[in-house]
Amino acid sequence: MTDRAAQPAHGTSRRGLTRRGLLGVAGAVGVAGAAGAGGYAIAEASDEAPDHGATVPFHGAHQAGIATPAQDRLVFAAFDLLTDDVAQVRELFQIWTEAAERLTAGQAVGPLAPSDGEPPEDTGEAHGLPPARLTVTFGIGPSFFERDGEDRLGLAHRRPAALRRLGALPGDQLDPERSDGDLCVQACSNDPQVAFHAVRNLARLGRGVVVLRWTQLGFGRTSTTSRSQDTPRNLMGFKDGTNNLRAEEAERLDRHVWVAPDEPQRWMRGGSYLVARRIRMLIESWDRAAIDEQERVIGRRKISGAPIGRQDEFDPVDLRARGGDGLPLIGDTAHIRLASPDTTKGIELLRRGYSFTDGIDPRTGQLDAGLFFLAYQRDPHRQFAALQRRLGTADALNEYIKHTGSAVFAIPGGIGRGRWLAQDLFA
Amino acid sequence: MTDRAAQPAHGTSRRGLTRRGLLGVAGAVGVAGAAGAGGYAIAEASDEAPDHGATVPFHGAHQAGIATPAQDRLVFAAFDLLTDDVAQVRELFQIWTEAAERLTAGQAVGPLAPSDGEPPEDTGEAHGLPPARLTVTFGIGPSFFERDGEDRLGLAHRRPAALRRLGALPGDQLDPERSDGDLCVQACSNDPQVAFHAVRNLARLGRGVVVLRWTQLGFGRTSTTSRSQDTPRNLMGFKDGTNNLRAEEAERLDRHVWVAPDEPQRWMRGGSYLVARRIRMLIESWDRAAIDEQERVIGRRKISGAPIGRQDEFDPVDLRARGGDGLPLIGDTAHIRLASPDTTKGIELLRRGYSFTDGIDPRTGQLDAGLFFLAYQRDPHRQFAALQRRLGTADALNEYIKHTGSAVFAIPGGIGRGRWLAQDLFA
Repeated sequence: MTDRAAQPAHGTSRRGLTRRGLLGVAGAVGVAGAAGAGGYAIAEASDEAPDHGATVPFHGAHQAGIATPAQDRLVFAAFDLLTDDVAQVRELFQIWTEAAERLTAGQAVGPLAPSDGEPPEDTGEAHGLPPARLTVTFGIGPSFFERDGEDRLGLAHRRPAALRRLGALPGDQLDPERSDGDLCVQACSNDPQVAFHAVRNLARLGRGVVVLRWTQLGFGRTSTTSRSQDTPRNLMGFKDGTNNLRAEEAERLDRHVWVAPDEPQRWMRGGSYLVARRIRMLIESWDRAAIDEQERVIGRRKISGAPIGRQDEFDPVDLRARGGDGLPLIGDTAHIRLASPDTTKGIELLRRGYSFTDGIDPRTGQLDAGLFFLAYQRDPHRQFAALQRRLGTADALNEYIKHTGSAVFAIPGGIGRGRWLAQDLFA
Repeated sequence: MTDRAAQPAHGTSRRGLTRRGLLGVAGAVGVAGAAGAGGYAIAEASDEAPDHGATVPFHGAHQAGIATPAQDRLVFAAFDLLTDDVAQVRELFQIWTEAAERLTAGQAVGPLAPSDGEPPEDTGEAHGLPPARLTVTFGIGPSFFERDGEDRLGLAHRRPAALRRLGALPGDQLDPERSDGDLCVQACSNDPQVAFHAVRNLARLGRGVVVLRWTQLGFGRTSTTSRSQDTPRNLMGFKDGTNNLRAEEAERLDRHVWVAPDEPQRWMRGGSYLVARRIRMLIESWDRAAIDEQERVIGRRKISGAPIGRQDEFDPVDLRARGGDGLPLIGDTAHIRLASPDTTKGIELLRRGYSFTDGIDPRTGQLDAGLFFLAYQRDPHRQFAALQRRLGTADALNEYIKHTGSAVFAIPGGIGRGRWLAQDLFA
């Protein structure tokens, strides 16, 4: 066991993370800033097998937790602002940055047992646990900039053009209590207690400035974001993410995921856009479907993951292949046909989804379970929304799923050492 | 990756688990029965470090998942019967037994891709995953025997005396939708996807006979049930389970956990009673409490886990020790004083709790999180209920928790090879 909080526990560390200590934070960040931004250590991270002791670098050209090999567990939280005072928000971003630096390095956010009789600054449940590749990724929703038509923080001129709500999409059955949000935090780790601890402590540090809007626990990754990872199965029992973008594909990531270097909003350069969709699977209906129907809906074989008509999971998908009866092997409404870049004129997304289960649906007694779909992209309207307009009307999968939550967030660019989240947003 | 379902996938295996195939099951069970019950391999299991590939034996004198070193993740499900036909229930118990045998051995419950155009018998999301020490533990609630005063299955004469609802206890704020149940399944594994898969497939096999009543996901164990395990921390940040009963303590387990060999109901010999309590922690209040208050409430130091006044987590608790001021070091209302066997005239429980988080409380915006407390014992009324009557009134911890769900289940004795769950209940 690591001694995660030995320093803060003895009360000798800087008490920078509480709001009373903000000036201390800002000063320290300034001093540490000399080291510069540094590159995002993608090759290093992607080559290592999942390891509970390992850390993923927090600083870099892009935020970690996007093109980082997907960790096994997720705790996701959306927050709403309680203030229209931009100074308070800037302060929060500074506090959250320093906290995330500490958490991802396996440290407590502050003393567990302060000597001055105050409440612990860290809640302690991760004390002794290695970080298990924890990443903390921050995002900003459209309502951060504008609520009820109002420029609430005076930052409307800093809003990037692509940050708009997705609007109604076919197949939506959205629950407002599981949708939207002014801010988001995605905590991924191979240890769910570490991810929970991160979100809980960030929520606590934000008390009075933000309040939790919704959260989502993901118990198993359904995507592969690195060539070093096997393809996991989703709750339909199918391999998911076979043709996902990979951390090693820098050129494709630049084209499809990272905001361009000439983006007018400097704080978004090297950033991305996250679309989060809570996709409930109607698993009882799915489970009653014959295997042929399931494979027809997806367009792949269930056990091997191979495209229909091929042998191996990674065999290329040939949408023109026909069977002996002259009909397409992969049907017109098969999910992989409609989602294929060949069909969509090149739309690609970096998917980092997680399986969830949230108890039972009290109306039906059936499991409320499915896929919490997280997709990163350069433009959520030209990518996810365009794709979903097609899938939501034609995809054979629609009979077995419904989208019950939706949110879009701008993901600011990577945070250099000594800098803080979206710093140029406030410049 | 193991080839979990290679056999059934090729359609050559016996199709015993669907209800259409029941006669096949019963026959096969009879044939396999020659091997006899066999002992529960406790020493073997407890000496091994958590290992995703490892299996825990299903058969034995006691059900696995009780005095088994606690796995990291939990999926728990309570079911209600949809039938009053005892033959259907007996059939379900046979089907569930064979399914659990397969699942805990890392096998699918049936073909993933049947050749006859039928739906897959196994839902497939655990295909390729090792069992990660999966255990499946079954229980029977009081309402199984009697509902609305009626002997619904004609088995009232087989009901053990100790299987009664707990009744109102101090501190209860119970949600009926998270309480009670005719049957329960506890699935524990180091891989949550494996545990989810088990519960989902058991629910599916029971379709038409049982329906899910409630479920609970536990993301991190909070108990230590073997000397081979470190003590984890609960969401209050304190080590939990320091003085728990241990798998290695056969004599204490016989006295406190296992139903006596002279129990009149034969099907309960070697069994136990499970009390499940969903304990919501008011973590925002807790997080605002000073460290001294937190330690006073628990009676232990937060970081070390040592009893107040001692140095080490495992130092014995001395309830008579006084400080320089003449006052008890461990206060009159401290949790460990009130829960101590010295105070309770020897009450002990085998705890197998898990931390949970179920999103936010929509009324408050605070995390709905806490401890899903599972306790095994010989008599739930003389043990858990007697303890909770004391704790629920006097425990300083009450300010920071509330019990929001409650259930009690009789846990039938271990299942010998070739036999099935609670077989003597139907004899």
